Amino acid sequence: MMSRLAPRWPAWLFWWQAACPQGVSAQQRTWAGASRIPGPGGPWGATGTSPLVRRGSSSASSCAPEVVLTRERYSVRRLPFSVVSEDDLAALERIVPGRVITDPEELEAPNVDWLRTVRGSSKVLLRPRTSQEVAHILRYCHERNLAVSPQGGNTGMVGGSTPVFDEIIVSTALMNQIVSFHNVSGVLVCQAGCVLEELSRYVEERGFVVPLDLGAKGSCHIGGNVATNAGGLRFLRYGSLRGTVLGLEVVLANGTILNCLTSLRKDNTGYDLKQLFIGSEGTLGVITAVSILCPPKPSAVNVAFLGCPGFAEVLQTFCTCRGMLGEILSAFEFMDAECMKLVGLHLHLACPVQESPFYVLIETSGSGAGHDAEKLSGFLEQVLGSGLVTDGTLATDQRRIKMLWALRERITEALSRDGYVYKYDLSLPLDRLYDLVSDLRARLGLHAKHVVGYGHLGDGNLHLNVTAEAFSPSLLGTLEPYVYEWTARQRGSVSAEHGLGFKKKDVLGYSKPPEALQLMQQLKALLDPKGILNPYKTLPTRT
Amino acid sequence: MMSRLAPRWPAWLFWWQAACPQGVSAQQRTWAGASRIPGPGGPWGATGTSPLVRRGSSSASSCAPEVVLTRERYSVRRLPFSVVSEDDLAALERIVPGRVITDPEELEAPNVDWLRTVRGSSKVLLRPRTSQEVAHILRYCHERNLAVSPQGGNTGMVGGSTPVFDEIIVSTALMNQIVSFHNVSGVLVCQAGCVLEELSRYVEERGFVVPLDLGAKGSCHIGGNVATNAGGLRFLRYGSLRGTVLGLEVVLANGTILNCLTSLRKDNTGYDLKQLFIGSEGTLGVITAVSILCPPKPSAVNVAFLGCPGFAEVLQTFCTCRGMLGEILSAFEFMDAECMKLVGLHLHLACPVQESPFYVLIETSGSGAGHDAEKLSGFLEQVLGSGLVTDGTLATDQRRIKMLWALRERITEALSRDGYVYKYDLSLPLDRLYDLVSDLRARLGLHAKHVVGYGHLGDGNLHLNVTAEAFSPSLLGTLEPYVYEWTARQRGSVSAEHGLGFKKKDVLGYSKPPEALQLMQQLKALLDPKGILNPYKTLPTRT
Ligand SMILES: Cc1cc2nc3c(=O)[nH]c(=O)nc-3n(C[C@H](O)[C@H](O)[C@H](O)COP(=O)(O)OP(=O)(O)OC[C@H]3O[C@@H](n4cnc5c(N)ncnc54)[C@H](O)[C@@H]3O)c2cc1C
Ligand SMILES: Cc1cc2nc3c(=O)[nH]c(=O)nc-3n(C[C@H](O)[C@H](O)[C@H](O)COP(=O)(O)OP(=O)(O)OC[C@H]3O[C@@H](n4cnc5c(N)ncnc54)[C@H](O)[C@@H]3O)c2cc1C
Repeated sequence: MMSRLAPRWPAWLFWWQAACPQGVSAQQRTWAGASRIPGPGGPWGATGTSPLVRRGSSSASSCAPEVVLTRERYSVRRLPFSVVSEDDLAALERIVPGRVITDPEELEAPNVDWLRTVRGSSKVLLRPRTSQEVAHILRYCHERNLAVSPQGGNTGMVGGSTPVFDEIIVSTALMNQIVSFHNVSGVLVCQAGCVLEELSRYVEERGFVVPLDLGAKGSCHIGGNVATNAGGLRFLRYGSLRGTVLGLEVVLANGTILNCLTSLRKDNTGYDLKQLFIGSEGTLGVITAVSILCPPKPSAVNVAFLGCPGFAEVLQTFCTCRGMLGEILSAFEFMDAECMKLVGLHLHLACPVQESPFYVLIETSGSGAGHDAEKLSGFLEQVLGSGLVTDGTLATDQRRIKMLWALRERITEALSRDGYVYKYDLSLPLDRLYDLVSDLRARLGLHAKHVVGYGHLGDGNLHLNVTAEAFSPSLLGTLEPYVYEWTARQRGSVSAEHGLGFKKKDVLGYSKPPEALQLMQQLKALLDPKGILNPYKTLPTRT
Repeated sequence: MMSRLAPRWPAWLFWWQAACPQGVSAQQRTWAGASRIPGPGGPWGATGTSPLVRRGSSSASSCAPEVVLTRERYSVRRLPFSVVSEDDLAALERIVPGRVITDPEELEAPNVDWLRTVRGSSKVLLRPRTSQEVAHILRYCHERNLAVSPQGGNTGMVGGSTPVFDEIIVSTALMNQIVSFHNVSGVLVCQAGCVLEELSRYVEERGFVVPLDLGAKGSCHIGGNVATNAGGLRFLRYGSLRGTVLGLEVVLANGTILNCLTSLRKDNTGYDLKQLFIGSEGTLGVITAVSILCPPKPSAVNVAFLGCPGFAEVLQTFCTCRGMLGEILSAFEFMDAECMKLVGLHLHLACPVQESPFYVLIETSGSGAGHDAEKLSGFLEQVLGSGLVTDGTLATDQRRIKMLWALRERITEALSRDGYVYKYDLSLPLDRLYDLVSDLRARLGLHAKHVVGYGHLGDGNLHLNVTAEAFSPSLLGTLEPYVYEWTARQRGSVSAEHGLGFKKKDVLGYSKPPEALQLMQQLKALLDPKGILNPYKTLPTRT
């Protein structure tokens, strides 16, 4: 609450708050009903606050078209894996008794991705509880040449977590135990199926934070996060999972358990094998447990939500911010006016500041409330005074902070309610970051419903999204390879944080040279010689 | 200088400074003559301020015994590589004209490690300037089955950078060009042979810092740092090279150039191949260029050097410090009284505080001098008041900061002047970290000259060092496997940051399970099927 901070904040800030009382009350009415970003629903894994929102009775899903089978929409040929037989089912039942799911209704949700863009036709889902069970499953599948699709919270954006044909789904939903937490070092060891938000709550109660946060936290599993090398909202501050994940336990394709689950900050004994599995999207092994370093919970968190008159001003605000907020800056996100329109339209969230072409969300996390407030107000004074920012609002208490974050975090959800979403997750040089959005908006004209740009600006990461009433091969043809070629010309990445999964596997070559691709294929052949782990994903189709 | 900060610092601090004026002036006399940690000397690579200090006329080196040939001291058998012929020399001369070194005198230094504990008998050293030259060299060596030992600054601690037999030394000393630096993002791209200290100077002039710093900075190469996954003095703040290195260019064993030299903070297109080479100590490829993310230079840096009455107090000081200094804490190092004795004895550095059983060096780096000083003085008041710390001194200007850092950074050098050094670089649980030092001191009694403990306490990283007049198999037998078994019982790492190289390769199994070892061997076979890259290193001798 602002009043609590009175002695610390300069008078102009209160004036500024007072100047838009209507906006504030509108927010509060709207936000009161807002909930966590929901997962895909279904009885086996979702723990979000309203798991059925996308499949249930919401207005969006009632008009959502059926999801076409992946094998029909895309020209992909089934590889010669075995087909699950009655004998296989009996054998699997012995490995995970009572946890072999074959009911078509229960299999409906895990066969379809969160975005509702791909659909597999798996007839079996397994719910192991332990690493040993996963090992038995893989040993069996390896011997029988049965393909497997590992699945966490099924919130992935690239069709990596759903089967393409009849792969057996191995879900981590029941592997949700915390193994240990060290109150001094902040090292958390847990099973792969722990839901991110639950881990977050657990360590926050103990004075720490998980170094990773993302809009899908209510559903995604830590194993899925590691398997996709997820970036998210705290990347700017705590860096990549490649640094914060201290150890992994992984089951290899042939059922071998590889235990690299150390809790040491530093360990240079030989090659760092866990790195192979971080970001390998279930194609090299199944992650069964994770050891992760949680930083101390900052005692003071502030969120500022600001309106900017143009993208150049967004960039200048970022530079000013980095200089003036330094080590307390923990997030710098941006969204354009179209995003704001969509969260208003589909989620009924109100814009908390004057309408602007761009918005930025800045979070500070520090150990001294007074010092942080002083730094932040110095910064705000500067950007407001110089016209980089035209309006803004500030939150210092949990509830209002969550409300402001919801505007940014729930864009993905709003988009998915807008129709079929063409998603691009790009790393680009900051000064060209938004050009592609404007360019495409002009290029597509009325062929698209919306063309929006938002993302983790502090990391050079643009989420470019195009929505349309339904999937259309011709719109896809206009977008691709155009977007990838544009990105490659800027030496950017065609997948900054979402990975390649099924939908992006053939564009790897825009960001990596042939020698890299060849080595990746060799690694795949070494670790999974039969190719049973998440086939048709991550690596390009061999021609 | 303290006086500059007058309005910001509480009165008691000045009292505390004023209370030990003699100590201060003594330091200044002593420190005036201190120089950067020198490299091993020799004409091909060292750029430290006094490169010959260890081989020249200093008192230490005059009594240093000759270094025994590795193949004589250790029972190791030469693998069936070809022997360099006259034809080979001619062919290599065509690849790197004028840069094929065969003069035995010039080969003396690069055949011996910095610690003077291993000696190879290489007859050829090559000094490529470009990645293409490295590629030609490796293609040639691969075809001819000639073994190669990549060498950077030759400051490694585990005998990884010197040949064991007659491997061809490929030095990166002439690959010292900066390729690009981006003034907004802080991304530095450079050749592998750039000396860390020079990179540091370069980016600091532009308002950034290299996220890595270590005592060997005057000699070590960034390629060597990446190849060893060096930790060092800024690890606590900026994390592992696995997060800060954005891209690498690597030449594979067969001469293929693998270009993964992107400058993107995020890139999830396929497997992150660069991770294979970080920390692989030249056994999987030769790193030829590095892209690294440099954080903005903090505008305020403070260093406190404190005396603690016991190790329990050191740990409590750390916990207090982490809580009170939060995001501005950038280093927490410790050393015991024996270390202080050695830097006094061999380097004539004076202790800046009252003699104590333990000392800690705390560095803060932040963006607001006033705020940082306030946080730091609050912390100092707390630890002095509660008796965790018995005496201390503080530096805020560059020169005095360097002086305090020298006490910690130059321990390695002081030890190497004390005789033969048995080095252990361990990750251990904080609460048991020092037990092994006390235990060994009692165990070894008069068999050792000194048993010291120091290190990166904030990262759980102990440097345990034992000195003796000369190498002795019996002392070695008392130390090993005892130290490794002790560490393994605590589930620690037998090499936290130095790697395994030649000297530690057979102890890998104390920290990694057999399945991990097997996968490492498979990776080696995949990337270097003939085993020509740095043979006898990192992976255990196959029996
Ligand atoms: C609303 C929303 C916001 C998002 N925001 C972000 C964001 O900010 N940053 C970001 O990076 N991503 C974001 N994502 C996408 C992100 O990839 C996922 O949310 C998350 O990391 C995936 O976790 P999951 O458990 O749902 O994995 P799934 O979707 O189930 O699986 C993802 C991939 O990992 C594999 N996998 C899953 N578990 C394992 C395992 N235990 N072992 C081996 N492989 C496994 C699967 O086979 C699949 O290839 C967002 C998604 C949504 C829906
Ligand atoms: C005084 C002193 C202080 C130190 N402090 C620290 C510390 O705080 N933290 C820490 O982690 N280490 C420390 N070290 C050891 C550390 O490993 C090295 O200083 C440094 O990282 C090695 O760099 P270098 O260029 O000297 O490599 P070298 O010693 O030349 O080589 C080290 C290894 O890397 C390989 N290598 C070198 N260059 C390449 C390349 N381009 N491609 C492939 N392989 C290559 C070599 O074959 C060898 O196996 C210290 C050493 C000294 C002497």
